[in-house]
Amino acid sequence: MENGDAAGISAATNPMVTPLLTDLYQFTMAYAYWKAGKHLERAVFDLYFRKNPFGGEYTVFAGLEECIRLIANFKFTGEEISFLRSVMPTSEDGFFDYLRSIDCSDVEVYAIPEGSVVFPKVPLMIVEGPVAVVQLLETPFVNLVNYASLVTTNASRHRFVAGKSKTLLEFGLRRAQGPDGGMSASKYCYIGGFDATSNAAAGRLFGIPLRGTHSHAFVSSFMSPDQIVVKGLRSHDGSSTCDDFVALVRNWLSKLQRTESFQGIFGETNQSELAAFISYASAFPNNFLALVDTYDVMRSGVPNFCAVALALNDLGYKASGIRLDSGDLAYLSIEARKFFCVIEKAFGVAGFGTMAITASNDLNEETLDALNKQGHEVDAFGIGTYLVTCYTQAALGCVFKLVEINNQPRIKLSEDVTKVSIPCKKRCYRLYGREGYPLVDIMARENESPPKVGERTLCRHPFIESKRAYVVPQHVEELLKCYWPGNSSKTREELPSLNKIRARCMQQLEQMRPDHMRRLNPTPYKVSVSARLYDFIHYLWLNEAPVGELQ
Amino acid sequence: MENGDAAGISAATNPMVTPLLTDLYQFTMAYAYWKAGKHLERAVFDLYFRKNPFGGEYTVFAGLEECIRLIANFKFTGEEISFLRSVMPTSEDGFFDYLRSIDCSDVEVYAIPEGSVVFPKVPLMIVEGPVAVVQLLETPFVNLVNYASLVTTNASRHRFVAGKSKTLLEFGLRRAQGPDGGMSASKYCYIGGFDATSNAAAGRLFGIPLRGTHSHAFVSSFMSPDQIVVKGLRSHDGSSTCDDFVALVRNWLSKLQRTESFQGIFGETNQSELAAFISYASAFPNNFLALVDTYDVMRSGVPNFCAVALALNDLGYKASGIRLDSGDLAYLSIEARKFFCVIEKAFGVAGFGTMAITASNDLNEETLDALNKQGHEVDAFGIGTYLVTCYTQAALGCVFKLVEINNQPRIKLSEDVTKVSIPCKKRCYRLYGREGYPLVDIMARENESPPKVGERTLCRHPFIESKRAYVVPQHVEELLKCYWPGNSSKTREELPSLNKIRARCMQQLEQMRPDHMRRLNPTPYKVSVSARLYDFIHYLWLNEAPVGELQ
Repeated sequence: MENGDAAGISAATNPMVTPLLTDLYQFTMAYAYWKAGKHLERAVFDLYFRKNPFGGEYTVFAGLEECIRLIANFKFTGEEISFLRSVMPTSEDGFFDYLRSIDCSDVEVYAIPEGSVVFPKVPLMIVEGPVAVVQLLETPFVNLVNYASLVTTNASRHRFVAGKSKTLLEFGLRRAQGPDGGMSASKYCYIGGFDATSNAAAGRLFGIPLRGTHSHAFVSSFMSPDQIVVKGLRSHDGSSTCDDFVALVRNWLSKLQRTESFQGIFGETNQSELAAFISYASAFPNNFLALVDTYDVMRSGVPNFCAVALALNDLGYKASGIRLDSGDLAYLSIEARKFFCVIEKAFGVAGFGTMAITASNDLNEETLDALNKQGHEVDAFGIGTYLVTCYTQAALGCVFKLVEINNQPRIKLSEDVTKVSIPCKKRCYRLYGREGYPLVDIMARENESPPKVGERTLCRHPFIESKRAYVVPQHVEELLKCYWPGNSSKTREELPSLNKIRARCMQQLEQMRPDHMRRLNPTPYKVSVSARLYDFIHYLWLNEAPVGELQ
Repeated sequence: MENGDAAGISAATNPMVTPLLTDLYQFTMAYAYWKAGKHLERAVFDLYFRKNPFGGEYTVFAGLEECIRLIANFKFTGEEISFLRSVMPTSEDGFFDYLRSIDCSDVEVYAIPEGSVVFPKVPLMIVEGPVAVVQLLETPFVNLVNYASLVTTNASRHRFVAGKSKTLLEFGLRRAQGPDGGMSASKYCYIGGFDATSNAAAGRLFGIPLRGTHSHAFVSSFMSPDQIVVKGLRSHDGSSTCDDFVALVRNWLSKLQRTESFQGIFGETNQSELAAFISYASAFPNNFLALVDTYDVMRSGVPNFCAVALALNDLGYKASGIRLDSGDLAYLSIEARKFFCVIEKAFGVAGFGTMAITASNDLNEETLDALNKQGHEVDAFGIGTYLVTCYTQAALGCVFKLVEINNQPRIKLSEDVTKVSIPCKKRCYRLYGREGYPLVDIMARENESPPKVGERTLCRHPFIESKRAYVVPQHVEELLKCYWPGNSSKTREELPSLNKIRARCMQQLEQMRPDHMRRLNPTPYKVSVSARLYDFIHYLWLNEAPVGELQ
């Protein structure tokens, strides 16, 4: 197998992702395998999770590209080897020579495409190769998939509640769990359906659209419009210059103050804020979006914004809108919308009423849902902390389990039946029904013939005998593809672009039967095994369980 | 001010931490400041949090070193400037020349030492400098402090429950929020009181002690001791070689089976497991620690372990212990301990009864507490998911607020009084009482004279008039020190080593009055302002609030 360079696969996005980013016990095990002469035995591991997050019934798989980047460039440096030697001082030299020689040219990786909707127990990735090498991959693979899939799923759930027509902005960098908690959040929230991020580094690295305006500090850093030095503003078409934009704004403000519909709503507005808005508009006359809640939204922020927006309008510019970052977002957005509509009508400014309203301030799935129920006039949501830290469930819990070694199937038993692993190298299929919805995922042994369109396929619960049904699929999709063929002759799937992964995610979410996706009491999607795999699981189980114990 | 190289401060640990790792709006604001000729105005920002995490009444401050590393090496690359130009196409060339020229040589950073116990509202860091530059620092500083402080605090809480005598191991890499979620967790859990990590990369980068043995997969990858090829094992003192270590182990196993106290506890043990233990012991005869729950702890894992440990003992080696990763940890640890004690007595193996027992499996503060209440025989805890993702509260919520610009104090009002910022550049003190405990933190205006030992100091709640008290301190500690003097003549505090930060954290936690630290209903620690600052806050508040509104 070609290595990373030859395959044209660049290194992991985060330079900290190296072969050393793994648990020490992967090295102590590797040494024990090596000492026992077992290190080259061919092992198959499944990477999967046991339970969908956030009380939902689906998960979006993400993180694959970073895993492939790691293995495509997997090689220990001399310095890393020296370090390992220092922490394993009693291990023999030959082992470190072996470690130095390791790459992933004899590892095979099969995976469900990134951005797919996935379910518990079905392997997201199947990794096959020399047992010592594949064990080293366990920790980084699980690390790279766990949070990626969790936050992508979280983003997709926010998109689901917000609805397709809303703009969703990821504002999480400052509250993320560390620098690449922030970077990963930006990438995976985009895959999960967000439209843009505030994170400039993520914009550069991944090409994600960027959004951002100004903060409360910007507003409070100004004192009064009197201090504004540069007062002129060129008109949009460049044909003229307004010599005193400040005066133009003040003129509009007093017109608004005299407008009958606004009587009693506002009087004297905050002058720091007015100065900040004028300055921001002068810098970005084509893209004037103001944060209006530093002092008081309806008595200061919105009137100040409108005065500046109307002055811009006089010069041929169209303001972008406002952002609300505190208070009762439903109420304030409705009041702001009314204000805009009055202006559109009173002053004949076409489109002023549909000015964009962005809301932020500790939003999450629940608050979005509550806003929907109350009714609101928000066009775009900026979401941070709850989204990127996955506050309601901060970890997914992926595992990486040995299912076969030297062609011998392996099963991990547990008193907790949900923790029993499904043995054997498998092939997995998604069966689709008449209406185009996926009906069930089925896992089968590698050498079984795939389910056929139009033919009855027995789908069994892996552990509960009575749960089984025949399904007649209208379409059969093999779930895992080969992303790293190792020494096999298989073709390597190309890694799709970020936008393609995002599009796949959108299409996959779209395609699910709605009752699996709803927030309240969603219907579990069925995951099954073939009749042959079922029998085999239970044969192994019986033979592995301690003698004399009824399980 | 010298730059990073001259100051001998290396770049941020994570190479992704660059000046571009910030929110886009910091750049759009910088442009608006620049356009308004305000970008060099000297601003002071406070970085603080509003509420202690995890339902507790204290927080440990961490992340400072990474912030200082960022600013010591703060410089945009040509490529970053080009990128910014592409996302801000209407901005003038002069602005990008300005950005290119920016470093942090005229920024001053004051901070509480890393590893200190800290409280809400008191600035952890005070950052002073040109407003445009300091704004750029907002996002990365908050990012670097938020998770660092949160996870350090979480680690310290786990240490508190576990007690000083237990060994605490951080096993979180695979479940952390991304690669440096894992790296940061390892670093900050160590600061917060953990003894070691499983994360090999963190061991190398930070010099944290490493720990690790083997996994369930290692156990299930073996079939039977019959397949073990290399059977010989040299004795500890090198004087002899046991030709058939497997036979020696089997011999011990049958002795154990015949031991009267073990009748009815176990019969035939699992042969995969036995083979795995023998192989692991052959690789690490000086450090044999076995995971004993792959099949059945008391009927297979513990007897298999003991047979191998006793065989090692015959050759002069002392086994390290067992790890339990499932089931009823309290019960199993007690049963395993009994088993060890029987062996110590029956076969006269000194120290066998005090064999170390490590427990893992989704541990957290609550489960540690429950184990303590039930009674257990665990010596070391391996903690992952809940610790590193801060599952019970995944974000701290630090903020960065403008408190002064051009020597003008600024206040950010809010309908929610906990969100009102405390204006002015401040000096902060911790006042200690007769018994050596900290009594109260007090913030004062910069030019006020510090509280004096033995003199009455009026400490006021910043917002509630009736909450005030005189305190006579026995010791006064100024909280913030200068870590980056900029152009001032102050001396720069050296960044302490990781072990010094950890020692400070231990000492600080130790020093607190116990009722602030307890898990259930801890007493809030008082944070106050001086009488002068109190008056000033309320003067500003009144003058900034919208006219005619009673607040």
